Amino acid sequence: MAHKDKRVQVILEELASSSATPGGGSAAALAGAMGAGLVGMVCRLTIGRKRFAAVEDELRGVLNEAEALRLRLTNLADADTQAFDQVMAAYRLPKETQTEQAARQTAIQSALQGATQVPLETARACGTVVKLAAKVIENINPNALSDAGAAALLAEAGLKGAQLNVAINLADIHDPIFIQETQEDLRIILSGTDQEKERVFAYVLEHV
Amino acid sequence: MAHKDKRVQVILEELASSSATPGGGSAAALAGAMGAGLVGMVCRLTIGRKRFAAVEDELRGVLNEAEALRLRLTNLADADTQAFDQVMAAYRLPKETQTEQAARQTAIQSALQGATQVPLETARACGTVVKLAAKVIENINPNALSDAGAAALLAEAGLKGAQLNVAINLADIHDPIFIQETQEDLRIILSGTDQEKERVFAYVLEHV
Repeated sequence: MAHKDKRVQVILEELASSSATPGGGSAAALAGAMGAGLVGMVCRLTIGRKRFAAVEDELRGVLNEAEALRLRLTNLADADTQAFDQVMAAYRLPKETQTEQAARQTAIQSALQGATQVPLETARACGTVVKLAAKVIENINPNALSDAGAAALLAEAGLKGAQLNVAINLADIHDPIFIQETQEDLRIILSGTDQEKERVFAYVLEHV
Repeated sequence: MAHKDKRVQVILEELASSSATPGGGSAAALAGAMGAGLVGMVCRLTIGRKRFAAVEDELRGVLNEAEALRLRLTNLADADTQAFDQVMAAYRLPKETQTEQAARQTAIQSALQGATQVPLETARACGTVVKLAAKVIENINPNALSDAGAAALLAEAGLKGAQLNVAINLADIHDPIFIQETQEDLRIILSGTDQEKERVFAYVLEHV
């Protein structure tokens, strides 16, 4: 069953269980999905109010983007579990003969690349959620300020959590070009998001 | 229906909807609950391994505490929604006569105190989750390092998200003693947790 179809209590129990999946990668994606959801709520609580008529078009654009990111991150929570399950399955392949050993190594490397690309996409989507929260923070219904702040905080935590999952899988990957490209992608995704999150957090504390 | 009994997709849709609840406070509690769950998983993936026999008793203690915090934070997600619904109900009370106005003000202040205490408890529980992750980080199954890191990140984001919800409700509270006590509680809860989270994060990046 997809994580999104499970009851909240069940997914929390599964995170806590001794099974390696779902783990930090899926939790990071779900934190990002909650952040995206909150950005959507903040937009909806602002759109239609006279005071914010001048930014309504911008908020509608942010709302659409946030909703797409919420769905994307919800699906990435499942993709993360599946990708890591494939890594574990590859490690369990037979390794008696040289042929088996070579096939197993190829399968492990391929699965590890998949299990790196999924949290990289989670990091990318979470980073965009942080930027959306930062984009709207000065032009929203003041009653929703703490929700916009929570959105930035949860999405930033999802980004950093995904970063750790990229790092732990990348450590076992041999292809130097894949490693270099992934690190470069991650560097771009991380660039400025922590400062954006801090700016949102400080703005909320100053204006509540 | 309690949030914990809803499907993941449904709670995410509710966060994104134009209804003010569930909002950032409930999302913060759920992020903390995911963090607590991950601390539990990390302990379970380590307990029973010969290499970590010396710390097994400590890990069992952390596991029990993490599991209690996971349940507590799951319930706080619901309590946050209920507490904020009461605030909105108090604001909707009649205010025609002076008697009604006085009763409404009393109800608003009482509801606001409730809606402040719930995220304060969320912050406290999240802070403890961060500390548990920091306590075990050097003595866990290395395969679970990124999960322990994600746990600290999500719980710290839950703590800061809850802090913003304390702040936004505290801004409308009149009782100076309640304000002072809450700020002092929050100061103690926040003390050192950001550094603990950073230490866990750096440790994971260095050791994967």
